Amino acid sequence: MRLSRYFLPVLKENPAEAQIVSHRLMLRAGMIKQSAAGIYSWLPLGFKVLRNLEEIVHQEQQRVGHMPMLMPTLQSADLWRESGRYDDYGDEMLRIKDRQGRDLLYGPTNEELITDIFRSHVGSYKDLPLTLYHVQWKFRDEVRPRFGVMRGREFLMKDGYNFDLTKEDALHAYNRHLVSYLRTYERMGLQAIPMRADSGPIGGDDTHEFLVLADTGESEVFYDSEITDLTFGDREIDVNDHAACAAVLEEFTSRYARTDETHDAALFDAVPEDRRRTARGIEVGQIFYFGTKYSEPMGAKVQGPDGKPVPVHMGSHGIGVSRLVGAIIEASHDDKGIIWPEGVTPFHAGIVNLKQGDEEADAACEALYASLKALGLDPLYDDRNERAGGKFATMDLIGLPWRITVGPRGLKNGVVELTSRRTGESEEMPPEQAVERIAQIYAKLV
Amino acid sequence: MRLSRYFLPVLKENPAEAQIVSHRLMLRAGMIKQSAAGIYSWLPLGFKVLRNLEEIVHQEQQRVGHMPMLMPTLQSADLWRESGRYDDYGDEMLRIKDRQGRDLLYGPTNEELITDIFRSHVGSYKDLPLTLYHVQWKFRDEVRPRFGVMRGREFLMKDGYNFDLTKEDALHAYNRHLVSYLRTYERMGLQAIPMRADSGPIGGDDTHEFLVLADTGESEVFYDSEITDLTFGDREIDVNDHAACAAVLEEFTSRYARTDETHDAALFDAVPEDRRRTARGIEVGQIFYFGTKYSEPMGAKVQGPDGKPVPVHMGSHGIGVSRLVGAIIEASHDDKGIIWPEGVTPFHAGIVNLKQGDEEADAACEALYASLKALGLDPLYDDRNERAGGKFATMDLIGLPWRITVGPRGLKNGVVELTSRRTGESEEMPPEQAVERIAQIYAKLV
Repeated sequence: MRLSRYFLPVLKENPAEAQIVSHRLMLRAGMIKQSAAGIYSWLPLGFKVLRNLEEIVHQEQQRVGHMPMLMPTLQSADLWRESGRYDDYGDEMLRIKDRQGRDLLYGPTNEELITDIFRSHVGSYKDLPLTLYHVQWKFRDEVRPRFGVMRGREFLMKDGYNFDLTKEDALHAYNRHLVSYLRTYERMGLQAIPMRADSGPIGGDDTHEFLVLADTGESEVFYDSEITDLTFGDREIDVNDHAACAAVLEEFTSRYARTDETHDAALFDAVPEDRRRTARGIEVGQIFYFGTKYSEPMGAKVQGPDGKPVPVHMGSHGIGVSRLVGAIIEASHDDKGIIWPEGVTPFHAGIVNLKQGDEEADAACEALYASLKALGLDPLYDDRNERAGGKFATMDLIGLPWRITVGPRGLKNGVVELTSRRTGESEEMPPEQAVERIAQIYAKLV
Repeated sequence: MRLSRYFLPVLKENPAEAQIVSHRLMLRAGMIKQSAAGIYSWLPLGFKVLRNLEEIVHQEQQRVGHMPMLMPTLQSADLWRESGRYDDYGDEMLRIKDRQGRDLLYGPTNEELITDIFRSHVGSYKDLPLTLYHVQWKFRDEVRPRFGVMRGREFLMKDGYNFDLTKEDALHAYNRHLVSYLRTYERMGLQAIPMRADSGPIGGDDTHEFLVLADTGESEVFYDSEITDLTFGDREIDVNDHAACAAVLEEFTSRYARTDETHDAALFDAVPEDRRRTARGIEVGQIFYFGTKYSEPMGAKVQGPDGKPVPVHMGSHGIGVSRLVGAIIEASHDDKGIIWPEGVTPFHAGIVNLKQGDEEADAACEALYASLKALGLDPLYDDRNERAGGKFATMDLIGLPWRITVGPRGLKNGVVELTSRRTGESEEMPPEQAVERIAQIYAKLV
């Protein structure tokens, strides 16, 4: 993409309404525009990141055998009356009447709808295990929407639902989700710590939230510092192996890690004092096992091996996709702007032409641009007639991990400059070598 | 994908509620499930097709330089009051009150919202031309939703908006959209004929609808038979070349082709009698030029070359993505089921094992499955313990364009059978050759 043709409305001033850094930077970098309280339009740069995250979620869900589908945003109230949650859910649920006076609602979650699909189509234990998921817009009518996409009202979420014959199988599905989520977040450049949580309106006993540590997090968190040394890395886990998945759960959840909602001071005191940490965290996902909470009242049963109908054991599992865009920025930025992890960056590299209109500099930039594209990479070329300072400031603000700077002086010596956004370190090298270096960095990612 | 693990709830019986073939086949093939009147869940097979269509739309939009973004589903009523359409739009608009009593609506279209984004961020003619688009769920509260996804209430649509300095530039954007749409529909295996249309609540004088001929179409259409001989094919058009785009418009719209809404009997009579055709058509897209209808009242102005502010010239352009799934089926099916065009098929080929459990047959199927996947293709392997007849019926119903049939008898002679869903013709060949043939077919597509 050429910046002169891109719709990137960056702001010079700090927007007054933004209280936290991700909100501020997303507005300043032209990623979003508020269209109503807690409801945002995603401008081209923001949409690219959102789409990248969605793609990672799809890939990681399908890697472990979960099946993509799509439920609608609006649901009939009838199903929620059946489960008993229609009245329970309170004012956060957006209730709607259509022109015929029928009660609809904008889905805040989909346990009822998926259970209805399941009971309509699945009748035998032989069709289990089954995990269906979708990535869809949801709505929660927050009293005070704020912090940009971090606590918006309309938000994009992946929610998945497992159906299993036994509690043991369903707990394996729980563990498999934990494995998959750890990998998902690491691909996004995040450390997300599973913490014992409250189940809230979803219900059930077993539930973990995934929290990203950040000063602006909404939750106070308490944990054993050993937990931040853990990484999932590139291990290959057989997701059908119950013991292997249980071992990952054990490894990542046996140390103390809780939010203020479930914090237990006595247990925390048992952690050696030098390892006790208190910090703030942003919730970016949650997994639940709730057994037959929905399958019982809604009659989602299968014929078991003995021919008798049994209600299925279920769990649900969510990743806050639009919220993650904010969370990543909270965890990865500096005074100058965003620092995208390579796994989610909207463009792989920026090209800055120090002297637009200089024949040699223009030609070198065009050649770099073409080489990167030929390798399947997606560069952003700042081809505007702007001063170098302005170009650098924009690149730093929008946070592309790598920048190639091209100017007449360097070209005389046959070099361009490759700069890491994260470290700020620059290195001079021939243009071909810069292209190769960037290609190597991204080749490692998939 | 292995069918034994896939969630494909096919129905043996014809569902009583389905009046038209696409609705019936989508229900029978386990593609959708109604969750409320005119609101559907997309089950895995349906979601795959929907996603393929969305991907084609994104690719073709970006090929001509349009910029992807994403506007929310819910909008504030205030913007619609500004344009004057809030009261005009009638009962089809789903009006919502949030917990604070603020008026929201589920967007049926986005002229107001995009105009607001434009006026907030663009100030100079130098930033034009600009075309932004998104693919998002919309809602129109139809009195009688019916025909499945063909006239649903919640539907997925691509809508795009061009902003230009002059009427001439905006008309070029109109022509460019026509060029892009012709290519888009052909990639989906459809002939969609541009027909002069009424602008309805969008407004403006210049508008064409794209219609797919099908007996179940909601519109009566009248056209010169010469028009169905036209194909866009693989021509390369420079989309910045005004004359080249205008020539395509001329070629595809100069012959008589109108819906009942704009039909002019006198003009139609001027078509030579043997070329006059009356048929039915399904609307799958529409393009509009409406000048300053929204930019004037909403103050979307840029500074022109002379320094004076001028309202921009706009148009909007829509493709009914979810409706297209139904339209493709209406245009491409037989008594046995769906016949997917290769460009949109949910799986590239089906593998039918005639004797599940037979060591040789199982091994041959596994090898075929692995070879197709290694080539980046996406096969569906029917590995269930079912009789051959049932497997064939399922494959015919779900409509994969190519089927490889593997059985012990053929394998003794070193062959499998490759069958075209469209023609029903089969050919015996060694497995490697079947793989190669399928790879060649799909290689031509992109």
